[in-house]
Amino acid sequence: MPESKPFTVACPTPLGDGGHVQLAHGGGGKLMHQLLEELVIPAFRNPELEARHDGAVLHIGNSRLAFTTDSYVVRPLFFPGGDIGTLAINGTVNDLAMCGARPLYLSCGLILEEGLPLEDFRRVIASMREGALAAGVKLVTGDTKVVDKGKGDGIFINTAGVGMIEHEVTIAPSAVRPGDKVILSGDIGRHGIAIMAVREGLELETAVESDCAPLVEPVQALLDAGVALHCLRDLTRGGLASSLIEIAESAKVSVLVEEALIAVEENVQGACEILGFDPLYLANEGRFVAFVAAADADRAVSILKECAVSAGAAVIGEVSNSPAGLVVLKSRIGTHRVVDMLSGEQLPRIC
Amino acid sequence: MPESKPFTVACPTPLGDGGHVQLAHGGGGKLMHQLLEELVIPAFRNPELEARHDGAVLHIGNSRLAFTTDSYVVRPLFFPGGDIGTLAINGTVNDLAMCGARPLYLSCGLILEEGLPLEDFRRVIASMREGALAAGVKLVTGDTKVVDKGKGDGIFINTAGVGMIEHEVTIAPSAVRPGDKVILSGDIGRHGIAIMAVREGLELETAVESDCAPLVEPVQALLDAGVALHCLRDLTRGGLASSLIEIAESAKVSVLVEEALIAVEENVQGACEILGFDPLYLANEGRFVAFVAAADADRAVSILKECAVSAGAAVIGEVSNSPAGLVVLKSRIGTHRVVDMLSGEQLPRIC
Repeated sequence: MPESKPFTVACPTPLGDGGHVQLAHGGGGKLMHQLLEELVIPAFRNPELEARHDGAVLHIGNSRLAFTTDSYVVRPLFFPGGDIGTLAINGTVNDLAMCGARPLYLSCGLILEEGLPLEDFRRVIASMREGALAAGVKLVTGDTKVVDKGKGDGIFINTAGVGMIEHEVTIAPSAVRPGDKVILSGDIGRHGIAIMAVREGLELETAVESDCAPLVEPVQALLDAGVALHCLRDLTRGGLASSLIEIAESAKVSVLVEEALIAVEENVQGACEILGFDPLYLANEGRFVAFVAAADADRAVSILKECAVSAGAAVIGEVSNSPAGLVVLKSRIGTHRVVDMLSGEQLPRIC
Repeated sequence: MPESKPFTVACPTPLGDGGHVQLAHGGGGKLMHQLLEELVIPAFRNPELEARHDGAVLHIGNSRLAFTTDSYVVRPLFFPGGDIGTLAINGTVNDLAMCGARPLYLSCGLILEEGLPLEDFRRVIASMREGALAAGVKLVTGDTKVVDKGKGDGIFINTAGVGMIEHEVTIAPSAVRPGDKVILSGDIGRHGIAIMAVREGLELETAVESDCAPLVEPVQALLDAGVALHCLRDLTRGGLASSLIEIAESAKVSVLVEEALIAVEENVQGACEILGFDPLYLANEGRFVAFVAAADADRAVSILKECAVSAGAAVIGEVSNSPAGLVVLKSRIGTHRVVDMLSGEQLPRIC
C-alpha cells in the first residue's frame, strides 16, 4: 500500500525552503512582490528603498536627485516601434520622470552573449544614441561584459539614471488624497501586443507598434504649469491594473476607474480577444497615470493633450477613502468588479 | 582545381562587417577597447564619457558627484573569499573610490535565471547586505528580471553607484605628471587565481582567497591627509598591467615599474607557474594603484599601511616623459621590457 503523503500546497508558497526562481518572479505581479518583500527589501531596509517608488529620491548637498535602475531582457531584441536599445533609454528616463525629476545622466551596463552579430549590436547602440538625444539625457559611464554562448540571450542592458528634482512637490503614493482624479495619458496595451505579435508570428490587419517613448515633456509641462500633481506612475510590467493596485495599496485608498474611459486601439482590442488577454494588464512603454487634485484635473488634461505623446489623455477615475487598498473597475454595462493583481505576467520578458 | 581564395586576416579586424561578439570583447583588453572605441563611445560623445575614467564626474547644483556602473557575471557564483554579491557591492564602491568620491548610494539590477535555487539567491543577497554595510553605502533602488532557463547563468547583477566628491582635487589620468611615484596597495593576483582554482578544481597547498574588499578607507585616508593624489585605479579585469597601460596612454606619459617591488603571494606565484599565467594581468578586487607627487609618496605609503586592506602598500615605480604611452617593466635581473595589453583576458567572466 503506498504511503499516504501529507497534502502540500505548492503554489502560493514559492519562497519556502528548496524553492527555485520562476519566470513569474520577474513578471511584476504577486510573485515578484513576494520575492522582493520577503528576500530583498528586508536585507537593505532604508527609507529610500521602502518608499517603493519607481526611483529613489536622494538629498545631496542642496539638491534633490532621483536615482533609478532597470535591466532590459526583452525578447525579441527588435520589434515594431523600437528595440531593446530604445527601451533601455526610455524605460529608465520614464522612471526618473515619474519621480518628477528632469532626467540628466544615464549609465549603461551591457551583457553580450558570445556570437551576437556585431550588426545587431550596432543597431541597438544606434537606437540608444537616438533615444538619449530625443529624451535629452547624456550616457556618461558604462561597462561591457561578454558571457559564453548559451549563457545569455543576445543582449541584456542595464541602465541607471540620475535626474534633478527642481521643485518642492512630493510626488509619491503617500501624497495621493481621496478626491484626486486619475488621468491616463493615452491608449493602453500596444507594447505588449507588439511584442506578442512578433514572438508568436501573429498576423494583424494593421501592425501594432510599441508605444515606447520618453515621457519627459508631458511631466515637465504639468510641473511647469504648477498643477497639483500627487503621484505619477508609468504602466510597464503588469500594465495599468498593477500600477493602480500598487498605488492604492501604498496610499491606503480606493481607486475607481471606468472601463469606458480607458482607450484601447481597435487592433489591440482585437488581438486581446483572440489571445485571451486583458488590456488592463498589458505592458506599455510610453503611458502613465497621473493622480491630480480634482480642481486641477481638467487643466492637467488640456496640458497633456498639447504633447504628442499624451495627446490621448483623459480622466479615467477617482480616488476615495474606502475600500482602502482596492482598485474597482466600473464596466461598460455598469457592473463593478475588484481588479486583482496577476500572479506573474501575461507575457514574460516584455521589457 | 579549387578556386583560390584571397588571403584574409580574421583576427585583428573583428569589428568588420559580419563580425560577431567574442568572449575576449569582454576581457578588458585590446578587443574590448576596440569595441568601445569604435562602436560605443562615438555614439554618445560627451566629455564625461570621453574621460575614460572608472566613473563619470557630474556637476549637479553646487556638488560634484561620481557616477559609475558595472555588471557582474562571475562564474562560479561562490568562490573562496566572496561571491557575486560581495563583488557587486565592492566593485562599484571601488570605482567610486577611484574617482576620489565617498560612495553613498547604489542601485541594483538583478537578472535571475529561471530555476535558480532560492537558497543561492538568499546567500547572494546576504552578501550584498554585508558588503553594503561594510562599505558604508545604501542600496536605494532596484529592479528584478527573470529570464528562461538556458538564457542566463544563475544570477547576473548590475550595480550603479553615486558618490560625493568632497574636495577640489582632480583625480584622473589627465592629472598624472612626470616624476609622480606609482604606489601599489598590496600583493596582486589573488582574485584571479581564487576563481581559476575553483573553476578548474585546482588543489593548492594553501587555498588562495579572493582579495575582494572595499577600498573606501585607504582612499579617504589619503584625501583626508591632503596627499597630492593625481590618479587612482583599481586593478580588476586585465590586472595591474592593463590599468597602468590605460593610464600611460591617457596621460601620454611613460610608466616604469620594478618587478622586484610588486608583491605576489607564494601560492599565487606557484599557481601562475603551473598554469602559465602572468600575475601582472590577473584580476584583483581589492587592490589599486595611486599616482602621487614624489614629495608625498613616502607619507602616502605610511598612511596606506595603517589600513588593513592596504597594509602591503609600496612604491613600485615612477612616471617619466617618454616613451609616451608605454609601460616598461624592469625585471629582477635588470632587463627592461615593454608591458603590452592582452588581446582579451586570461580568464573570461572573472567579475
